Amino acid sequence: MEDNFNLLHTTEAGGRRGQLVLPHRTVETPVFMPVGTLGTVKAVPQDVLESLGAEIILGNTYHLYLRPGHEAIRRMGGLHKFISWPRAMLTDSGGFQVFSLAALRKVTDEGVRFQSHLDGSRHFFTPEHSIDVQIALGADICMAFDECTEYPAERSRAEESLRLTMAWARRSLDHFRAHCHEVPWYDEFQVPPVSHLRPGSDPRQSLFGIVQGGMYRDLRRESAERLVEMDFDGYAIGGLSVGEPRELTMEMIAEVLPLLPADKPRYVMGVGYPDEIELYARMGVDMMDCVLPTRAARHGLLFTSEGRLNIKGKKFAEDQGPPDPACDCMVCRRYTRAYLRHLMHSGEALSGTLNSIHNLAYYLGIMRRVRKDLSGGGQLA
Amino acid sequence: MEDNFNLLHTTEAGGRRGQLVLPHRTVETPVFMPVGTLGTVKAVPQDVLESLGAEIILGNTYHLYLRPGHEAIRRMGGLHKFISWPRAMLTDSGGFQVFSLAALRKVTDEGVRFQSHLDGSRHFFTPEHSIDVQIALGADICMAFDECTEYPAERSRAEESLRLTMAWARRSLDHFRAHCHEVPWYDEFQVPPVSHLRPGSDPRQSLFGIVQGGMYRDLRRESAERLVEMDFDGYAIGGLSVGEPRELTMEMIAEVLPLLPADKPRYVMGVGYPDEIELYARMGVDMMDCVLPTRAARHGLLFTSEGRLNIKGKKFAEDQGPPDPACDCMVCRRYTRAYLRHLMHSGEALSGTLNSIHNLAYYLGIMRRVRKDLSGGGQLA
Repeated sequence: MEDNFNLLHTTEAGGRRGQLVLPHRTVETPVFMPVGTLGTVKAVPQDVLESLGAEIILGNTYHLYLRPGHEAIRRMGGLHKFISWPRAMLTDSGGFQVFSLAALRKVTDEGVRFQSHLDGSRHFFTPEHSIDVQIALGADICMAFDECTEYPAERSRAEESLRLTMAWARRSLDHFRAHCHEVPWYDEFQVPPVSHLRPGSDPRQSLFGIVQGGMYRDLRRESAERLVEMDFDGYAIGGLSVGEPRELTMEMIAEVLPLLPADKPRYVMGVGYPDEIELYARMGVDMMDCVLPTRAARHGLLFTSEGRLNIKGKKFAEDQGPPDPACDCMVCRRYTRAYLRHLMHSGEALSGTLNSIHNLAYYLGIMRRVRKDLSGGGQLA
Repeated sequence: MEDNFNLLHTTEAGGRRGQLVLPHRTVETPVFMPVGTLGTVKAVPQDVLESLGAEIILGNTYHLYLRPGHEAIRRMGGLHKFISWPRAMLTDSGGFQVFSLAALRKVTDEGVRFQSHLDGSRHFFTPEHSIDVQIALGADICMAFDECTEYPAERSRAEESLRLTMAWARRSLDHFRAHCHEVPWYDEFQVPPVSHLRPGSDPRQSLFGIVQGGMYRDLRRESAERLVEMDFDGYAIGGLSVGEPRELTMEMIAEVLPLLPADKPRYVMGVGYPDEIELYARMGVDMMDCVLPTRAARHGLLFTSEGRLNIKGKKFAEDQGPPDPACDCMVCRRYTRAYLRHLMHSGEALSGTLNSIHNLAYYLGIMRRVRKDLSGGGQLA
């Protein structure tokens, strides 16, 4: 979408306080986006996500394409309606899961043939098909179809992968431009007061390009420059947090950010730990997502102001303190470490729910604090 | 507890509208009590239970004794504090689970030796020990230790089982009377305004006796009469819904109710389907509990005003109606059948949570309606 980003303030270190203006929501940035793989942020009801202040969540195109299917979701009015999430959403391209989950992949310039990890059924994803699926799902932001370069990768492999990703970016963009008005809610959002967009704005989805290039600085630069030439609605940095040392992650981000246009949102995909998301936000990253807060929660790992806490530990058996004494979330206000340990130890479903709620509150709280710091002393929050 | 029941109105059919005055809550009756086996009503957070209007929930003594252990819970101030549930609670005696879950049981007049279903560890439950555990847990209502007679049972077997249950009832009561002031919160509840009890009331737990006798009317009568002589704080009818035809369940309840004192609460244990709880409430039963709404929910079975609905059905794949069009619960207001089906089909944790919330809302809604009907046209609800 044109003019989808208001840059409100930039710090000397490059940190940006902004607003992402999307059809379903104006999202305050920098923002952390909880991951809702199959149309649910695992174990957390939508009203709780709202009360935690989540403004935008992810859906996974690969998973939703397989179950319940993008055509079914299109017929039901799109993903927002299907899962009852009125705020903003973003879908990935499906590429990452095709490469990490599916079986018997065969990659050609045309696209990727693969078998479903669920039932072995055969599928073929091309950039055009990924965009079609994402338009049917109707998230506010779509992603170009890319290949996530593995780590480590030889230079020749990274070059070849980048060549593919750049060609697919071009095809993704062309197909998106030709079909973006087919999103299920397009007509509905033309009518005020449904839309909070400026009068005359085109209430379409946004499409982001994805910078790849492995851990090669010059390939990353080349990737960024070519995508910017294509003129996407926003730019993601992909292929990070794939096993490389953290210094390298930061180096790649630092290399790419200055090449991206200041008036477009910047999204680092799939990161990270609490200190990472804070660091990258202060460097000028506007958007991040990660399964870590919810996945770790289901394994009993809580992120707190006192560090990581493995709630399974015997030492918490009679600990009547809150999970995080500095946290004001609904879990820390009500429940004790002893109770959370008991739930985990007993395999109770409530364990995943409560742990996830706290971890999400912790992540969202970090970003709230960072936004305040980045606002330049103004009234922004 | 003496004077723990206010009988507000009795209908011609015997239905009773009352109030159960307990240390942690005045509970409007007839009431349905959600089951919170291990200190959690499976998959449903405590704040949601509150917003659904649950006034009293169950804990299972056998499970909590094994995990995390009653002494740990006592040291943490009792079950209410441990699980953060400020409203009323009831614990069963552990007998039912010892007989249904534990391994290598050996029953003597003294008590039951058994091995834990979790780790095979050896334990010995006597009426005195069950009461000790229940006092440590500190629910508002405790249950006498009993043997739940299986169905079908020969008369001689039912007689022998009843003999044991009556002897254990006497020992439960004697031990309870000698130790009931040891409940963890006893001192705390002496101080106004913590307690909503009348000034001078003794803020102790209540102990209920359990009528057994298999499907033999005369044994049921004998059991009821002997328990009433012992003078419990309330009376439960146990050993029902164990496989017998529903007519027999109703017959046993009808046989026992007239023998119980009108000024004491009456509790039918472990029932039932929605139409059953309504029927028994209208017959004069004040309290019921059942795992059915939550267990069925986890298997995709929803109770609705239109009957039972197996949400897994393919016909719901694109059904955008609410689970129950006549229901006003937070699930029916927000989510569609198609979404609930998708969650179930995808094995998502949110499935159990949302299905359970609806089913509990449905059960609690039935009792709200029945209470209104039983109030005799007054302002009670």
